[in-house]
Amino acid sequence: MKLPEPIIIDPQSVPSLRWGIIGPGRIAETFVAATQKHTSQRFIAVASRTTGRAQEFASKFNIPKTFANYQDLVADEEIDAVYISSHMSDHFEHAMLAINAGKSILVEKPITYLPEEAEQIFAAARQAKVLAMEAMWTRYLPQSTILRQLLESGDLGKPELLTASFCADNRAVERLWKPGGGGIVFDMGIYPIAIAQEILGEPSSIAATGKVRPDGMDEESYSLLNYESGARASLTISGIATLPMLASCSFENAVISLGEPFFVPSSISLKTKDFYPEQTTWVDESGIAGHEGLSYQATWFAKYLSEGKLESEVHTHAQTVANIRTAFEITKQIGAKPF
Amino acid sequence: MKLPEPIIIDPQSVPSLRWGIIGPGRIAETFVAATQKHTSQRFIAVASRTTGRAQEFASKFNIPKTFANYQDLVADEEIDAVYISSHMSDHFEHAMLAINAGKSILVEKPITYLPEEAEQIFAAARQAKVLAMEAMWTRYLPQSTILRQLLESGDLGKPELLTASFCADNRAVERLWKPGGGGIVFDMGIYPIAIAQEILGEPSSIAATGKVRPDGMDEESYSLLNYESGARASLTISGIATLPMLASCSFENAVISLGEPFFVPSSISLKTKDFYPEQTTWVDESGIAGHEGLSYQATWFAKYLSEGKLESEVHTHAQTVANIRTAFEITKQIGAKPF
Repeated sequence: MKLPEPIIIDPQSVPSLRWGIIGPGRIAETFVAATQKHTSQRFIAVASRTTGRAQEFASKFNIPKTFANYQDLVADEEIDAVYISSHMSDHFEHAMLAINAGKSILVEKPITYLPEEAEQIFAAARQAKVLAMEAMWTRYLPQSTILRQLLESGDLGKPELLTASFCADNRAVERLWKPGGGGIVFDMGIYPIAIAQEILGEPSSIAATGKVRPDGMDEESYSLLNYESGARASLTISGIATLPMLASCSFENAVISLGEPFFVPSSISLKTKDFYPEQTTWVDESGIAGHEGLSYQATWFAKYLSEGKLESEVHTHAQTVANIRTAFEITKQIGAKPF
Repeated sequence: MKLPEPIIIDPQSVPSLRWGIIGPGRIAETFVAATQKHTSQRFIAVASRTTGRAQEFASKFNIPKTFANYQDLVADEEIDAVYISSHMSDHFEHAMLAINAGKSILVEKPITYLPEEAEQIFAAARQAKVLAMEAMWTRYLPQSTILRQLLESGDLGKPELLTASFCADNRAVERLWKPGGGGIVFDMGIYPIAIAQEILGEPSSIAATGKVRPDGMDEESYSLLNYESGARASLTISGIATLPMLASCSFENAVISLGEPFFVPSSISLKTKDFYPEQTTWVDESGIAGHEGLSYQATWFAKYLSEGKLESEVHTHAQTVANIRTAFEITKQIGAKPF
């Protein structure tokens, strides 16, 4: 079995969209810096309700327009797409605002806490005929295009057991420990959940245990997901301990392992099932390293928009909602309430 | 923080014991070949109740004496130590036979299914003043001596979360699927259980789920272990799927990861807790690779015996029994009965 070549879209081959930004926080800084460096996308406006924040961000990234409210930004005729990276509990409001103004949206992950809210956003977007995508950037990395080709080839055989973990001692990241700002299962766990979803689909049952603070914020969880296919997934998610961020899946005919961290540009290996396996590894040496990989999704977004698509083909509305449903179920089972 | 140097005992510095072998199966072949190649230990007798098997084994490994029953082997005055690698459900009988004949023993892991039986063996051994060791060979590898020095230094701070998994598609290994021949939690799971025990001690509680065949043989399990220290361990054990065999532990001040597979000579890394960590790695380049690492335990055994010790200092009787107790509890909770 061979590793296929990655599929990389030439950033110059897609329209250079004019983006507006809602919620210019830390992740927006990383996304904009990477996207300005590696793509043909243009950021032309930024809005923040925090005095001076939009100006500061605009100045740093050479963005011509600033707004003190989101209504004015989404109404701006020059804007093709809105990137929403506000507080997680505000995603719904801001997504609906942009959609109602007829704008296509890229919303930071997780898109919402409630599956129903994600469904409402996507229904509204389809109704308004705008593209709506959750910023699950991992799906657009070169290694993910290899993974999908392997999955589509059928050569791997039936999936068996997947393990994925994202454990990072983020006790100092205040946002994660406040209701509405994330929570560990949603903010970090969305990556293991998404990789399991990509490979195995939506689980038919979930059994989760975990550690939750008295205020309802979750610290750590261990989830076993079962699938109608017979496959299983074991997800370990922690905001209070650090472990290698790995994801692997055993199939009937081979084993796939993503590099470390599995959700940023790293590597992908195809291995035999022997105790001392033979393996072929593709290593990402594109030069777009670490969180600069956030830029790929912007190019894919522009491609989809130019094709008149209303959703990502590799991270569909249904898949996005399925992931929120899984995260919601895990938090429910462990007794957390991060929103 | 630095990685200490490994502690390796010169195989020529310990007495060249005369070993007898009970149960010359596949693991005995690997152990004897490795030990003859890399140590000063001598195998002088082998016993099997299967006609021709002892002769075949003796011929292959140039062993002078063969016996058709175990009683005669353990009674042989020339033998200093007995290596017991019979069917797992026979370990107890053979261990007691050797102890009662005044022989020191190295018993393949897991030593027994029942914690009480392991305790009985060790009590009898102490009474008879003979050395009794379970063949948990991983404890004697160079990387394990580095791990122990790190643990003893106190520099790592409090342990937090450990993950360890041994998943290998062993559906074709008939022995594992017959009562008394192992079972997945006991035969394979003993490695993740042992590494968790070495780093975190004995768990105060265990919660396990898994897949069990109608005949009671276990296929796969997912266990969460909690410790009085507040630490947690998540163990994934499968005989029906293959995944990288990894073990890592998050501590207050650093992360330790063992190489792949974690229980054979591989590597050990010490990492910072950053998202993109700094790390120092010691790689085993001793030339004693893979299952040849089985040989180390023979040298340590000879050292302990020469010092008049009745148990291993790095895999004590209490630790051995604790591991059996954990394996027993996991099988009980998932509804398996592999014995």
